Amino acid sequence: MALQDPVYKEAVIDLLGAIAYGEISAFQRLAQDAGTAPELRDKAELARMASRELGNFERLCDHMESLGADPIVAMESFVEVFDAFHVRTASSDWLEGLVTAYVGDGLAADFYSEIAAFLDADTQRVIIENLRDTGNAEFVVGRVRAAIVKDHRVGGRLALWGRRLMGEALTQAQRVAAERDALTALLAGGVDRPGMDLAAISRLFTRLTENHTKRMESLGLAP
Amino acid sequence: MALQDPVYKEAVIDLLGAIAYGEISAFQRLAQDAGTAPELRDKAELARMASRELGNFERLCDHMESLGADPIVAMESFVEVFDAFHVRTASSDWLEGLVTAYVGDGLAADFYSEIAAFLDADTQRVIIENLRDTGNAEFVVGRVRAAIVKDHRVGGRLALWGRRLMGEALTQAQRVAAERDALTALLAGGVDRPGMDLAAISRLFTRLTENHTKRMESLGLAP
Repeated sequence: MALQDPVYKEAVIDLLGAIAYGEISAFQRLAQDAGTAPELRDKAELARMASRELGNFERLCDHMESLGADPIVAMESFVEVFDAFHVRTASSDWLEGLVTAYVGDGLAADFYSEIAAFLDADTQRVIIENLRDTGNAEFVVGRVRAAIVKDHRVGGRLALWGRRLMGEALTQAQRVAAERDALTALLAGGVDRPGMDLAAISRLFTRLTENHTKRMESLGLAP
Repeated sequence: MALQDPVYKEAVIDLLGAIAYGEISAFQRLAQDAGTAPELRDKAELARMASRELGNFERLCDHMESLGADPIVAMESFVEVFDAFHVRTASSDWLEGLVTAYVGDGLAADFYSEIAAFLDADTQRVIIENLRDTGNAEFVVGRVRAAIVKDHRVGGRLALWGRRLMGEALTQAQRVAAERDALTALLAGGVDRPGMDLAAISRLFTRLTENHTKRMESLGLAP
């Protein structure tokens, strides 16, 4: 079993730690956005989204513990890079928060499912299950589109915001790739595991960008 | 069945709305405190506490819906008074947040269970179930006591904080009593329901104060 290889296992725990810290950061961000939602109904919806991220977080922590890892230790390595992302993409109103939740979580989900394809079946299952049910697409799309109808300038502002999110996400992803050797090695593959060459990584980025564009369009935003 | 009396039913929905808005406010506050917790382990614990409050919130909303009420409408009346309380008791660090969670939620729980004693069995059960499992006493007591050991001045500051919470809570409770006739009528009772006279209300306040004192002492704070 792949998880008996200590180098592979370390990389998997690293990856789970990154995803989990991402979840608790998303919780934090959504809870904060809930505080700025003008309508109580929207506040409740954002709080629900936040709580769902924390549910995912709990499941990931349980899984890391079942692998004998301390989830807190596994997450520590990612605090700086995720916090930097969140500081640089702190939303100034709840609509920006909605776009971040939809576009940012969508991008992260795409990225992690691409990586999951290179992992053992067990880890793959945990990651894929974790990615379900965070989107809340209908709610977000409805609210963003309604805001643009009400004031079309909002569309321009949020389109810029979406592009900035993509840029910041790529910057931070590159930082993680440069700093976390174990994680990068996962993608590169091993003697008995397939990996990605440069051409494959380039195709991965093309897919991520295409999906990002689709998400922006479904929000009614110029990608 | 008591809930067939429209006046009684209105008062019950009012009360459930107040408790529910209190829960989502507590969610918000704890999520914010999670952001200021210096250790990742504590941040996760506060996020968990926040999420549990939201779980309670969801159950209360479901129950209000089962009574044919719109939970959002039921909560709207309490937004102003709860928000005023939370603005006046915004914690300046995560230790104050812990004291608020423990002392404030404890006080609210005591108050609501006292009121529940005057209600029909069904509503009583919903309220009592809702009050369970929000405390997280062990975690809070441990962290506050550890902080005082590390720096005894913290104890003085947090003791003042606890007293201020009690004062603000009483102020806002009086405001609710003055504004929400249906709620006040609940406490006063009816032809076929027992109520509280002034002596009983005075004894209620004595019990609330005594429990508050016990909670302060268990935190190691002068009441």
